[in-house]
Amino acid sequence: MNTTLDFDKAGGLVPAIAQDADTGEVLMLAWMNREAFDETVRTGRAVYFSRSRNKLWRKGEESGHFQEVRGVFIDCDADTVLLKVKQIGGAACHEGYKSCFFRQLDAGELKVIAERIFDPKAVYKKAE
Amino acid sequence: MNTTLDFDKAGGLVPAIAQDADTGEVLMLAWMNREAFDETVRTGRAVYFSRSRNKLWRKGEESGHFQEVRGVFIDCDADTVLLKVKQIGGAACHEGYKSCFFRQLDAGELKVIAERIFDPKAVYKKAE
Repeated sequence: MNTTLDFDKAGGLVPAIAQDADTGEVLMLAWMNREAFDETVRTGRAVYFSRSRNKLWRKGEESGHFQEVRGVFIDCDADTVLLKVKQIGGAACHEGYKSCFFRQLDAGELKVIAERIFDPKAVYKKAE
Repeated sequence: MNTTLDFDKAGGLVPAIAQDADTGEVLMLAWMNREAFDETVRTGRAVYFSRSRNKLWRKGEESGHFQEVRGVFIDCDADTVLLKVKQIGGAACHEGYKSCFFRQLDAGELKVIAERIFDPKAVYKKAE
């Protein structure tokens, strides 16, 4: 499939934004290599590439909190992906928040501006 | 200012998402170094770091299409920024669209799914 995505700019990876398809809330940013992108498109579930684990990261494979893809968008420079998704379980962040962007800068301090949806310890078997 | 942002993961830069503060539309993704981030917070206007030009990019400095920052959010890993902005001129993309994500993948083909807000040739003095 020729999507003209440019994986060369950042060492084989492109940033991928996941946005709630219904509310527009930005849920998270992760990374994709070509394999992750192709599997995402093929399966309709978000697959990223984990830089820390250096392997494909099928979002939800441990927590059950999959992201069902409702739309795939490519930016003007073809070096960023935007996914519109339905977030199973209601929370994208491994810390239990709907969005990973649960902290806002306020007068030089980061303040938590969201409520936890789940307890990470109850969802993930291994310790954080 | 200690925001605990981690600029070391990707060579001194973090990805920064700009989102329309009113509609929630994701407008663009660009990059920030520490200087760009600090100036963004200090001035209330989005400043990025241009990887192609290797210098600070004060969004709108050429087009007049500044981004007025309404909120600054940091993700759980402190390696991505989300800005909620008011986009002056109504379009963030240098190609004249409101959002840089104006193309959707549809059955293996990229289709333009938005209308141009401005003519790039009329806004930018130099040729694209």
